[in-house]
Amino acid sequence: MQGVLNIPKELSGLQDLLANSLPRVETVFAGQLVSDLPPVDEMCSYIERYRGKMLRPTLVLLCGITANPESDALLANNDFDKLITHTHIISGAVCEMVHMATLVHDDVLDEAEIRRRGQTINMLKGNEVSVILGDYLIASSYELCASINSSIPSQIVGNASAVMCTGELLQLHHRENLSMDESTYIEILERKTAALIGASCELGALATLGYDQSINPTTLALKGFGQKLGIAFQIQDDVLDLLGKEEEVGKSVGKDLEKGKLTFPVIHHLEKTGVMDGTRSLMMLQQAAAGDRSVFPEITKAIESTGSVDATQKLAESYVQQAKDAIVDLPESAGKSMLLLIADAVINRSF
Amino acid sequence: MQGVLNIPKELSGLQDLLANSLPRVETVFAGQLVSDLPPVDEMCSYIERYRGKMLRPTLVLLCGITANPESDALLANNDFDKLITHTHIISGAVCEMVHMATLVHDDVLDEAEIRRRGQTINMLKGNEVSVILGDYLIASSYELCASINSSIPSQIVGNASAVMCTGELLQLHHRENLSMDESTYIEILERKTAALIGASCELGALATLGYDQSINPTTLALKGFGQKLGIAFQIQDDVLDLLGKEEEVGKSVGKDLEKGKLTFPVIHHLEKTGVMDGTRSLMMLQQAAAGDRSVFPEITKAIESTGSVDATQKLAESYVQQAKDAIVDLPESAGKSMLLLIADAVINRSF
Repeated sequence: MQGVLNIPKELSGLQDLLANSLPRVETVFAGQLVSDLPPVDEMCSYIERYRGKMLRPTLVLLCGITANPESDALLANNDFDKLITHTHIISGAVCEMVHMATLVHDDVLDEAEIRRRGQTINMLKGNEVSVILGDYLIASSYELCASINSSIPSQIVGNASAVMCTGELLQLHHRENLSMDESTYIEILERKTAALIGASCELGALATLGYDQSINPTTLALKGFGQKLGIAFQIQDDVLDLLGKEEEVGKSVGKDLEKGKLTFPVIHHLEKTGVMDGTRSLMMLQQAAAGDRSVFPEITKAIESTGSVDATQKLAESYVQQAKDAIVDLPESAGKSMLLLIADAVINRSF
Repeated sequence: MQGVLNIPKELSGLQDLLANSLPRVETVFAGQLVSDLPPVDEMCSYIERYRGKMLRPTLVLLCGITANPESDALLANNDFDKLITHTHIISGAVCEMVHMATLVHDDVLDEAEIRRRGQTINMLKGNEVSVILGDYLIASSYELCASINSSIPSQIVGNASAVMCTGELLQLHHRENLSMDESTYIEILERKTAALIGASCELGALATLGYDQSINPTTLALKGFGQKLGIAFQIQDDVLDLLGKEEEVGKSVGKDLEKGKLTFPVIHHLEKTGVMDGTRSLMMLQQAAAGDRSVFPEITKAIESTGSVDATQKLAESYVQQAKDAIVDLPESAGKSMLLLIADAVINRSF
């Protein structure tokens, strides 16, 4: 995420710590996937290219730091090992691996061709390999998580993963349901995206505070921050799928329309448009869901005509605000300041 | 598994205990999958029909009993709660859930239509739902596993699941490789089937002995029993896919030939057949892998002509013997006797 941030000078120490710690997450990540079987190894190396913004590990580390009441003093003394332990690093790798597993399976479901500016593994190796590779990532993430000497992180990750699946199932259930409402949309986002981002923040906090601190107010605040931020993040993701350019976003776009998945700009548009225009919009959405991409420009034009893109932006901003509010009672620290910066950044991104 | 066993009278107490305990496993299993979302709930109820022989939970419970040095005395005193604890029940449900997740994903990959004499979920609801539903089962199994107050079972289950995936990836890698040899075939079986069956036995033993007893000779013996038994079990599964009748086996058959997966009868046949007949066999195998099921009868006739079915039976028997040998040093008990009966039963089954 740091690439998109404008980091003030007083946070540069923290920024350096994060920049030095994320490669450790990557090392643990890659080490867990090493296999004695060359074909397995080859595929794992390929999908390491899928790694992108590293939002989840960044949040694990940052929440771990923020949960530490001595964080600013430890930072000032370069006492980094007390701030970021091996457990933080493992937790970061686990969250990224679960996330990557969902990317691999999502690309199968979406029949996506492009991810991180390269061919998806399903295009390259077929759906069968992709399904099993996703399973391998999930299983490996659990094995890695269970290397932490407590069953609590495994519970959190298992639960978040299960909730993510229910979000996907709910979304599939409502596919081509053109009367889906905002509250169902938000519930899908809470489940499919926000649960894991909330869990990332929770795991970071618990790695600092101890695994018996699940209802510690700091843990709950940071978890709540992640959950609200996750919703904002996914709203922005949905906007990019609708309006983004493939070369900028770095992955296939227009997949939601093509798969008949209603996202907020469309829901808002259908609510605001009149009967005549609405009928035309519904017809175009059905055409898009039938695979006709030629109607995309007209659909986006219609969506803009009802102010639905602005309304979506406002909705995302409201969740960013809720995320910030969740940590308002935490003492001021460099970690907290960086979290607030990240909160703004997730909706001011074009990739 | 008990339906296929001929249980001697002296084991009837143990048999009753198992028969009373497996429904407890089913209750925990179903309870873990309950969702507040009706569409999720509906699908989970549907796939509960997938539950079949309950081999893995049976082995968890039985190895838990066998690992208990007082098992016969406890059985005689009807002291069942000391023999089978809630941890045994949870472990059984976890292993069955991981197994069921693989069935759901396997059916997607195999494009299978029939499972447990009913339509597969992929036929009924499509591949997308099936992929996510499999993911939901995996995630739920981990969440359930992490409810045990130790990270060791999560490590074992995570590792077994990851190894299973590498077995599947290895099998996919060798698809339509008509020169695949026996040792690669056995390695695939060790990974894709034996790892989880071995883990089931290990989890049962550890639930009795304590999670610090991973290298206890009893744990290792029972784990080894499961690993060898798993290989025998999968060899028999492969024979049934080749020679079984769909109405008897209860699931789609002929899938291995159709998917270009070489199994032992075919490997043995290609090794033993002469150049002329062998060329004909290779051609037929390629036809089968291209989707032409009309060559199946001729392929099975060719396989029988080289004694390859008998050779496969002998191979399976040798792994059953290795399984029995693995527990030869364990003291005699009802549990051990039942394990030996099950060992014979896995290759004397037609479903």
